[in-house]
Amino acid sequence: MGPDTDPIDRTRFPIDEWRLVECAPDKSTLGRDETLFAVGNGYLGMRGNPTEGRNAYTHGTFVNGFHETWEIQHPEAAYGFAKTGQTIVNVPDAKLMKIYVDDEPLLLSTADLQHYERSLDMREGILRREIVWTTPSRKKVRIRTSRMVSFTERHLAVMTMEIEMLEGDAPVVVSSQILNRQDGGDEYYASEAAMGEGFDPRRSGTFEHRVLEPQLDWCNERRMILGYRAATSGMTIAVAAEHTIETDNPWTAIETTEPDLARKVFQVDARQGQPITIVKTVAYHTSRGVPVRELADRGRRTLDRVRRLGVAYLREAQRRWLTGFWADSDIVVEGEPGLQQAIRWNLFQLAQATARTDQMGVAAKGVTGSGYEGHYFWDTEIYVVPFLVHTHPELARSVLLARIAMLPQARRRATELAVKGALFPWRTINGEEASAYYAAGTAQYHINADISYALMKYVDVSGDLDFLARYGVEVLVETARMWADLGFWRGEGEARTFEIHGVTGPDEYTTVVNNNLFTNVMARGNLVRAADVVRRLDEIAGAEAAALRTRLGLSEEEAQEWWECAAAMYIPYDESLGVHPQDDQFLSKELWDVQGTPPEKRPLLLNYHPLVIYRFQVLKQADVVLALYLQGDVFTAEEKRRDFDYYDPITTGDSSLSAVVQSIMAAEVGLPDQALSYFHNALWTDLDDLHGNTADGVHVASTGGVWASLVQGFGGMRDFDGNITFDPRLPREWSRMRYRLKVRGSRVQVDLTGEMLEISIVDGPDLEVSVRGKSYVARAGEPVRVWLEDRLDEAMYLPESAY
Amino acid sequence: MGPDTDPIDRTRFPIDEWRLVECAPDKSTLGRDETLFAVGNGYLGMRGNPTEGRNAYTHGTFVNGFHETWEIQHPEAAYGFAKTGQTIVNVPDAKLMKIYVDDEPLLLSTADLQHYERSLDMREGILRREIVWTTPSRKKVRIRTSRMVSFTERHLAVMTMEIEMLEGDAPVVVSSQILNRQDGGDEYYASEAAMGEGFDPRRSGTFEHRVLEPQLDWCNERRMILGYRAATSGMTIAVAAEHTIETDNPWTAIETTEPDLARKVFQVDARQGQPITIVKTVAYHTSRGVPVRELADRGRRTLDRVRRLGVAYLREAQRRWLTGFWADSDIVVEGEPGLQQAIRWNLFQLAQATARTDQMGVAAKGVTGSGYEGHYFWDTEIYVVPFLVHTHPELARSVLLARIAMLPQARRRATELAVKGALFPWRTINGEEASAYYAAGTAQYHINADISYALMKYVDVSGDLDFLARYGVEVLVETARMWADLGFWRGEGEARTFEIHGVTGPDEYTTVVNNNLFTNVMARGNLVRAADVVRRLDEIAGAEAAALRTRLGLSEEEAQEWWECAAAMYIPYDESLGVHPQDDQFLSKELWDVQGTPPEKRPLLLNYHPLVIYRFQVLKQADVVLALYLQGDVFTAEEKRRDFDYYDPITTGDSSLSAVVQSIMAAEVGLPDQALSYFHNALWTDLDDLHGNTADGVHVASTGGVWASLVQGFGGMRDFDGNITFDPRLPREWSRMRYRLKVRGSRVQVDLTGEMLEISIVDGPDLEVSVRGKSYVARAGEPVRVWLEDRLDEAMYLPESAY
Repeated sequence: MGPDTDPIDRTRFPIDEWRLVECAPDKSTLGRDETLFAVGNGYLGMRGNPTEGRNAYTHGTFVNGFHETWEIQHPEAAYGFAKTGQTIVNVPDAKLMKIYVDDEPLLLSTADLQHYERSLDMREGILRREIVWTTPSRKKVRIRTSRMVSFTERHLAVMTMEIEMLEGDAPVVVSSQILNRQDGGDEYYASEAAMGEGFDPRRSGTFEHRVLEPQLDWCNERRMILGYRAATSGMTIAVAAEHTIETDNPWTAIETTEPDLARKVFQVDARQGQPITIVKTVAYHTSRGVPVRELADRGRRTLDRVRRLGVAYLREAQRRWLTGFWADSDIVVEGEPGLQQAIRWNLFQLAQATARTDQMGVAAKGVTGSGYEGHYFWDTEIYVVPFLVHTHPELARSVLLARIAMLPQARRRATELAVKGALFPWRTINGEEASAYYAAGTAQYHINADISYALMKYVDVSGDLDFLARYGVEVLVETARMWADLGFWRGEGEARTFEIHGVTGPDEYTTVVNNNLFTNVMARGNLVRAADVVRRLDEIAGAEAAALRTRLGLSEEEAQEWWECAAAMYIPYDESLGVHPQDDQFLSKELWDVQGTPPEKRPLLLNYHPLVIYRFQVLKQADVVLALYLQGDVFTAEEKRRDFDYYDPITTGDSSLSAVVQSIMAAEVGLPDQALSYFHNALWTDLDDLHGNTADGVHVASTGGVWASLVQGFGGMRDFDGNITFDPRLPREWSRMRYRLKVRGSRVQVDLTGEMLEISIVDGPDLEVSVRGKSYVARAGEPVRVWLEDRLDEAMYLPESAY
Repeated sequence: MGPDTDPIDRTRFPIDEWRLVECAPDKSTLGRDETLFAVGNGYLGMRGNPTEGRNAYTHGTFVNGFHETWEIQHPEAAYGFAKTGQTIVNVPDAKLMKIYVDDEPLLLSTADLQHYERSLDMREGILRREIVWTTPSRKKVRIRTSRMVSFTERHLAVMTMEIEMLEGDAPVVVSSQILNRQDGGDEYYASEAAMGEGFDPRRSGTFEHRVLEPQLDWCNERRMILGYRAATSGMTIAVAAEHTIETDNPWTAIETTEPDLARKVFQVDARQGQPITIVKTVAYHTSRGVPVRELADRGRRTLDRVRRLGVAYLREAQRRWLTGFWADSDIVVEGEPGLQQAIRWNLFQLAQATARTDQMGVAAKGVTGSGYEGHYFWDTEIYVVPFLVHTHPELARSVLLARIAMLPQARRRATELAVKGALFPWRTINGEEASAYYAAGTAQYHINADISYALMKYVDVSGDLDFLARYGVEVLVETARMWADLGFWRGEGEARTFEIHGVTGPDEYTTVVNNNLFTNVMARGNLVRAADVVRRLDEIAGAEAAALRTRLGLSEEEAQEWWECAAAMYIPYDESLGVHPQDDQFLSKELWDVQGTPPEKRPLLLNYHPLVIYRFQVLKQADVVLALYLQGDVFTAEEKRRDFDYYDPITTGDSSLSAVVQSIMAAEVGLPDQALSYFHNALWTDLDDLHGNTADGVHVASTGGVWASLVQGFGGMRDFDGNITFDPRLPREWSRMRYRLKVRGSRVQVDLTGEMLEISIVDGPDLEVSVRGKSYVARAGEPVRVWLEDRLDEAMYLPESAY
C-alpha cells in the first residue's frame, strides 16, 4: 500500500513523515479530527477543538483520573453488583480564545478562508493552525495559533495566538476564556449535545446533576482562576491562566470572572502589518480532596515558574523530551512515507497517553476523550505496558504502580466475590469495580493474570528486582491466591485437573463460561510466577524476605499448592479438530456466518441482543489467538497455525484490540498477506475512523498494538521470561525496518531487511539474543548480524500439506 | 404433624377448619399478617391493614394490572435490553376509617384491649375484627368491623363498622377516607417507608416521580370520588365511596375532598348500649386510558346498583359464590383440622387471586402485595392454571386469554431477539418484556413452552376445541416457530441432533446454558403439539381451517420441520451417573455444600454474587425434577428416582416454587417422608413466613402447588394428553383425602383412603380413568372402586438395591 492507496484523503492530509497535516477543514469528520489533533501528556489532554470554539463536535479537556462518582442504579440488582459508577469529567475549557475582527466572530465553517493549515508536529509536540481570513468587511487577516501540553511540566498548557492584518486596519478583539461547560448554558452547548442517536455502551454517559460545584472564581490584571469541587466524588480542580500580549498596536484589556466563566478580553486597534501576539499559559491542578484554594496556590506557583522559564524554554524542553522519546521509540520503515507518518502518529499517541501519568493509570482513550468513561482496563497491561517496558521502562514502572495502589480495593472485592486474595476491577478509575454489566465485566477475572503478566514482563526485561521485592511479590501472591481459590479440582488420580469455571475471557461475544482457554493459560502463568517468586524470595528480597513472608502469611505449602494447580491446569483441546476450544462449550455452538453479515449489522454488539451473540461461534476478538501470542512459548507452531486457521474466519474484529493480535499471529504462523492487512487495520483504526467512534477518543490500546505488530509481528521479537529472541517476518513489500529496544540497561538497535538482521548495542552491557533458535551475544561496537535465508512467505512453518 | 406441632403459634392462631383466626395482635409479624388477612377477588385486593390505619407494615390496595411505566435505565445497556419498566401501583386507600372515642384515636399497639379477634372467614369471604377497648378515659367500647371484596361485583368492596359504648357515654368520631398515599405526606408514611435495609430483587421498587396525578376530587352528601391518571403509563383510576349510618344516637356528618384525600366524618354522641352502624361501599374502576370522569360515572353506577341490591344480598351472593368454589375445589383431609385449615387458606388464596381476573393475568402475589412489581410470570401457567383447569375451567380460559392478548408484543419481541414467531415476555404487565436482568429473565425462553403446555392442558382436560381453534392454534404455531428458529442442527447422519443453546431454565442459580433439559423437553412438547394441531387442523377448526392456514401462513413443510426438530431434540443424559444433566455443563461444575451453608447465608441470591452461584452445582429449584413432573410420561420410573436422588441434595429451595415440585416427585419416586416434609414446607410457606417475605404478598404459585401436591402428589392424579390416571400415595399419617375434579364436562369426586380409591361421577358424562395402569369407566351412580394393595412406602417403585 503506497501513498495512493492510503485510506485517508491525501489531498486533505498530505504525507509528512513527522507531522499530521490538514489542508482544509471538513465538518463531516469533525469529531474524528478533534481526536486526531488532540494534544496531551498523559495527565492533561485537550481535544483538537478550534481555538475560537466553534465548530466543535464535542469540546473536551480531560485530566487523567479526574472523575465524578455516582451510585449505580441497577434496575434489577443482585448481591455484589458494582455500586460506584465513575465517569471522567470534562473539565473547564481553557483552550478557548474567541476572535472578532470588525466585531465579526471567526467561524471556520462559514469563514472565507484564503489559507488553512492545521498540523500536529510530532517532533515538537505542538499543534499549530494558520489561516488567512477575508472578513465579511473584506479585510484580510492572518491568524496563527499554537497549542502545547507540556511533557516536562505536567500541569501546563501553552497557547499562542498571532494576529496580523494583511489588508486593512480593523478593531480586533480576543476574548480568552476559562469556561465550565458541565451544565450547559453556553452558546455551543446545544449543537454539541446531539451526539448521535441510540445507545452505545462504549460512549460515556451524562450526568443529571451539576457535577462541578463552583468554589472559586478570581482574577487580577495578570491572572484568572476558576476552582471546583466534584459534587459526589469530592475531587477538586483549579484552573489558572495567565496572559501576555505583545504588539505595537494600541490595546486595552479587561478581566472578569463569574462562577463558570473567567475572561480576559483584549481590544486592539490593529493596523495593517502590525502583528499582535498573545500568549496564554494555563495550569490545571487536581486532587482527591485538597481544598480548591490550595490547588489555586499550586496553579499560581506553576505559572510563576513558567513565567520565569519563558515559553521559548518550555518549547525547547518539549522538543528535547520528544527527541528522547523518538530515540527510544521510533520505528522507521524505509521508503514508505505514508505508512511512516501513520506509524509515528500511533507512537506519538502512546507518548501523549503515558508520558506524565505519574503513577496514575492509562485510560482506554488516554486523555483525548471521554469514551469508556475514562476508565482503566486491561488494555494498559496487555497493549501499552509491553511498549513501555521495551522503550521507557520508567513509565512502565509508573503505570504498574497505579495498579498496585489498588490492592486494598482488590482485596475487598475478592471478599465480596467469595474468593481469597485480591481481585482487581475490570474497569475503574478509583480502584473500585465500576463494571455495571458483570458478564463482560467482573467475570473477566483474567485481569488478575494480565496484571501479573505485565508486572513480570517489566521485571524480566528491566531486571528491576527491587520493584519485584517491594511491590511485585505481593501482587503475584494475592492474584495467585485468587486463582487457587476460584478454580477447583475435578476428577481423580491421573485424570485429576484444576479447572476454572464461570469466567469471561477477553472475547466478550461469549461470556461466563467454563475453562476459557485464555484465562486458564494466563492463570497458570500467574500461579507459576507466584510460586517461583516465593521459592526465590531470599534471592529477590534479601534481608526483607523474612518480613515479607510474615506480612503476606506465605508458606511453602501454599506455594506448593500453586505449583500443583498450575501443573494440573486444564487446557481444553479438541482432538478431532486439532484446535484449542475457546472454552468447554465453544465448539458445540452454532457457527455465525460472519462473511454473510451485512455491514449495517456491525458491530454485532450494537445490533443483536447478547443472548443471540452468545449462543454462536463468533468472536469480538480471538482470545485463543491472544493466548498463543502472550504465552507463545507453551504452544507449538502447528497448534498456533491450526488455532489461527480455526478462529480467524469467525473473528469479527468488532473490538479494536483484535486486529493487532491477528496481525502478529498471522505473521508468526506464516500468513504474510493477512498479517499486513490486519496491520493496516490497526494502523488506520483512528486515522481512518475504522470503528466509527474515534470521535470519542484515541484507541490507545490499538496504538500500543501497532508497536507490537511492527516489533513483535514483523520484527518477530519475543521476550518470554526476559529472553530476547527474533524470528523476523519483514513484509515482502517493505525494504527495511529499524527500531530500538531497552533490555536490562542496554539500548539496542535492531535493523531488519529482507536479507539480514542486525542487532547493535547502542550503549549498556552485552546482551544475549537468539535469532531463529540460535544464540548470539551483541556487544557495544560488535553488532550481531544474521543473514536470513527466507522471508516471511517461505517461512520455516508448516506447509498446508503437512496437516 | 398435629395441632401441637403446627409451625404457627396456636395460642394466637387457634385451629378453625374454615377460618383463619387471630386472638391477639403482634407487631413483630405485622407484615406477614397483613398478607395473611388480605381480601381480594383477583381484580381488587386490600391488604389486612387495620381499618383505623395504624399500625401498618405497609398499606396496600392493589388493582390487578394497574401499573405505572418507566424507562429502564441500564447502567450498561446493550441491544434488545428491556426498555419499559412496569410496576403495580398502590392505589388510593379506601379501607381507612379512623376512630376516635372521647377524641382519643384508636391505636392497637397501645390500646388497652379487653378482647381482640380477627378472622378471615373462607366460606363467607369476609374479614372481621372485633375488639373491646377500654379508652384512656376508662370507658369501654366494642368495635366490630368487616371488610369484603366481592367475588360477584369485581369493582366492589364493602366495609362495615359497628361501634357500641359498653360502659359510659362518649363522643365517637369516625373519619372514613379515601387517601392517596403515593407521595407520602400523611401521618403513617414515615413509619412505613422503612421497609428493611439492603436490596431485595423480589421486592418492588419505588418511584421518584409523583405517580398518580390528581384529576378529580368530588363529593356530595352521599358520595365521594377521587380520580387519578398515572403519570407515565396514562392508566386511569376512579375510587368512589358511599356511606350509610344507622344509629339512634344523635349524629352529624361532614364531607370534604382535596386532591389526595376525600373524607366523610361522622360525629356521634354515643350513649351506652346504643350501637352505631356505618356501612361503606367502595367501587374501584380502572382503565388503560378512559378519562377519569367516565370512570367516575362507572363508579357511580356500581354504587347505584349496590345500593339497590343491598349489603345483605351481596354478602349472600359472596357466600353462594364461595359455596360453589369449595364444591369444586375443596380438598378434605380427614382428622387433620390444623392441616385442613392451612390447606383451605391456600386454596382460598387461589380464589382471591383468580376469581375475577376477567381476562387479565395472575400476578406473582395476586392482589395482596407489590412483590415482584405485580408482574405476571410463568407461575400462572405452571402453578395456577392446572388448578383452574381441574376445578374452574372457565377461569383457566380467562387467564389464558390474558396471555393470548400479548401475542402482538410477543411477535415484536421475537424479532428483536432475532428469532421467528413469538417470544413471550418473562415478566410483564402490559405484554412488553420488563425483565431488566436478562440472564434470569429474557433468557428463560421456556416461557413459550410453558404457555403452550398450559393451553393444551386446558384444551385436553376441558375438551374446549373452539378455544383451540380460535386462539390456541396461533399460539402453538408462533411458539413452535420460535423454537425451530432458536435451536439448530448439530452433527451428521444418525447422530444429528436438534439443540437449543444460550437459554436459562427455571432454576435461576444457573443461567444462559446450552441444552437445558427442562427447556429442551418442554420445547419438544411444544413442537409436537403444534405439529399435531396443524395436522388435525380440519378436525379442530372445521370450516375455518383454510382461513387459519392462510392467515398463519401454515404449510405441511413447516409442520414437518417441527416433527423433525422434536424427534431429534437433544436430551442430555449422563451414562456414568445415570442422570439427566440439568444442561450440557452442569455436571462438570463444582458441588456446592448446601448442608454446610449457614442460615445467615440463605437465600444464596441475597448473599453471593451471581458469578459465584453460577459456577457451582446448586439449585434454586430443581428444574430437571420439574420436567419429570410436567412431562412425566416420557421418563421412566427409574430415571425419575435417579434424577430426584441426584438433584434433591443440591436443591436449596430458595425459590418458593421448589418445595411443591419436590413433594410431588418425592411422592412419585417412593420417598413418602420427604414428600410430606416438602408438602409442609409448601403449605406453611406464607402462614409461617418460611421465605421471610410474606409481607410482600402471598406466594400464589405455591398455593397452586399445594393443590398439586395434594391432588397430583399424594393423590397421584396425572392428566397427560387429557387422560386421567391415578397412582395414589396417601401419607401413612393420613386416613382419608377427598377432592373434586372437572374433566370434559364431568364433575368427579375422588375419595382416597389407604386401602381404597373411589372415583364417582357427581354429574356429567362417563369418564374413562386409569388406576395404576388399569383402565376403568366411572359412570354417574356407578363409582369406580379400586382396592390399593400398597401404600406409598411399600410402593411399586424400585428398592434402593435395584441400582
